[in-house]
Amino acid sequence: MPSDSILIVGGGPAGLEAARGIAEIGYKAILVEKRDRLGGTPDEASYAALTPHFKNTDDVLGAMIGAITSNPLVEIRTGSTVKECSGAAGDFAVTLSKDGKEEVVSTGAIILATGFDHFDPGRETQMYGYYEHDDVITLVDAEKMLKQHRFVRPSNGAVPKRICFIQCVGSRDRQIGNEYCSKVCCGIASKQAIEIRQIVPDANVFIFYIDMRMYGYWENQLYWPAQEQYKVNYVKGIVTEVLKKGDKLVVRGEDTTMGRPMEIPMDLVILSVGMEPSTGTKALAKLLGVRQNKYGFIEAIGEPMDTVSTSVEGVFVAGAAAGPKDLEDSTSMAGAAAMKAIATVRRKSAITAKV
Amino acid sequence: MPSDSILIVGGGPAGLEAARGIAEIGYKAILVEKRDRLGGTPDEASYAALTPHFKNTDDVLGAMIGAITSNPLVEIRTGSTVKECSGAAGDFAVTLSKDGKEEVVSTGAIILATGFDHFDPGRETQMYGYYEHDDVITLVDAEKMLKQHRFVRPSNGAVPKRICFIQCVGSRDRQIGNEYCSKVCCGIASKQAIEIRQIVPDANVFIFYIDMRMYGYWENQLYWPAQEQYKVNYVKGIVTEVLKKGDKLVVRGEDTTMGRPMEIPMDLVILSVGMEPSTGTKALAKLLGVRQNKYGFIEAIGEPMDTVSTSVEGVFVAGAAAGPKDLEDSTSMAGAAAMKAIATVRRKSAITAKV
Repeated sequence: MPSDSILIVGGGPAGLEAARGIAEIGYKAILVEKRDRLGGTPDEASYAALTPHFKNTDDVLGAMIGAITSNPLVEIRTGSTVKECSGAAGDFAVTLSKDGKEEVVSTGAIILATGFDHFDPGRETQMYGYYEHDDVITLVDAEKMLKQHRFVRPSNGAVPKRICFIQCVGSRDRQIGNEYCSKVCCGIASKQAIEIRQIVPDANVFIFYIDMRMYGYWENQLYWPAQEQYKVNYVKGIVTEVLKKGDKLVVRGEDTTMGRPMEIPMDLVILSVGMEPSTGTKALAKLLGVRQNKYGFIEAIGEPMDTVSTSVEGVFVAGAAAGPKDLEDSTSMAGAAAMKAIATVRRKSAITAKV
Repeated sequence: MPSDSILIVGGGPAGLEAARGIAEIGYKAILVEKRDRLGGTPDEASYAALTPHFKNTDDVLGAMIGAITSNPLVEIRTGSTVKECSGAAGDFAVTLSKDGKEEVVSTGAIILATGFDHFDPGRETQMYGYYEHDDVITLVDAEKMLKQHRFVRPSNGAVPKRICFIQCVGSRDRQIGNEYCSKVCCGIASKQAIEIRQIVPDANVFIFYIDMRMYGYWENQLYWPAQEQYKVNYVKGIVTEVLKKGDKLVVRGEDTTMGRPMEIPMDLVILSVGMEPSTGTKALAKLLGVRQNKYGFIEAIGEPMDTVSTSVEGVFVAGAAAGPKDLEDSTSMAGAAAMKAIATVRRKSAITAKV
């Protein structure tokens, strides 16, 4: 018996937007989230303001969550994971598990919105010392402090006066196997640099980069204001090492514009860690037999004109489960995936009706 | 009387994908295109292969057009323009004009997929001499030659041996008023550089750039292969002038990595022209009273979580009418716009039914 409900795995921005879209068109969405809360990575990792418009994360997520909790066509299943899946497009049987109890649900299509993990800088090929030095942190750690409007050195609670970002940690790095660019880190670092200057107006903020990938409007929304209004210092350079020298950190590398080695003291170093496929993304891809690319992300087989279809009919991908994506990508893809998932269940129902 | 059909203006990738999506969900799409053919800019400007996967443009567009011409729920109106619009979400009356004859159609929602224009290098602030030198061409001119698998110097028909791209022509340029980055030019130049090396294997190809914005997978799909497999020379530098010297062109500027002036002879110079709102985008925005940003593109008011809603209820935007977008952006947005347009007509019908 074909089902016209659609199962969405992942309650982050892409999953929330897909669920809303499906319900608004009159179809039933079953939203499965392994955590006890909706909101995905922006919630779990305590994002402060969203890139590039500086909108408050909790407000934005709250509105998205409100839209689906108020819609009776969305069935929300938090604290739940996908254990098994059988059947085919139009008629999948998916086994969900919650608190050790299993239940099989019928669904006509599946949208994977299982997201990404932040790169673990313990695996980086340079010597940035994330696990050695308290004052070497990641974009995620910085975001947590910015959310509390309290920006300090973890080692001693003092307000840092010299702060730098190191871009491309875990991205554009063949040694690690992550040849791709993680797309959002230049924008997020620039957003954080602006926020740091707002909280600590006399701080010197540096961003060491290879290319500033401030594509589209990020150029005028973030990159110009960061430089002109907030005096963020962008330095094209390669940092190879972060050392501790007394109470300070020293950043060593090469300023490629000036063509000379650099050795600059810092109070705080922020590693701009990239994206990797989440554990859930890899597990679900395997469970559903969906093709992954060499990095483990789910492959969108119809690009560039179809960003959401996977190698398995009736299974779609939305957001960073498919690779490095910004929020606009994720929510646009959610709409496209919702549309194609509904088209699938309609097509399959029509075929069955004819037979 | 509310209408549950949806009018789409623009028959490029975004418009085609939106029409397909709407029809596949069982709603009626009216696709209005001012040209006599569908396909939009990739067709009009004779794109050869699409960035970043090198898929054949005609094949890809053919499949998209086939999907809607075979669907009776899509009404295609080529050679038509929008003259007037009255009413509101759920019940717009849109006057279309074809061959001087006007007709009013009812529609519940409108999707603007009216796209972009390529920047006209006659307006650039540098001295690149597009209108002075035959062998200074644009990305669009180059694409036309690549489509014919015949890559020559326009001045004399000879095969060029030294070719360069100049990035950011009409983008990231405050003098012109285009502060934004046009997003796709780095990728397209890299794609063309690879194609040139395939057609003219002994050519030297240079790309002069500020930042190579090879975001996400473009890094591994285009940027690594261009450098390693195709030996494209990427030079971080500012070109200020292109001069004619006998039979050759001379590119003058500064190599910012080496920190020294450069003066390099070239056979052919390709200007990587950016995106500006199309005439149709600006005209439709005005006609419908939709808010435009300072560059004239249509403003998506709900970003980053809603990339398609405009300042007018029931009017949505998809693709480069909203700003610099790549093909993935455009087709993802098309799905999101289709979904929200259908949600609008459903909501408005339900309200009327209650009254």
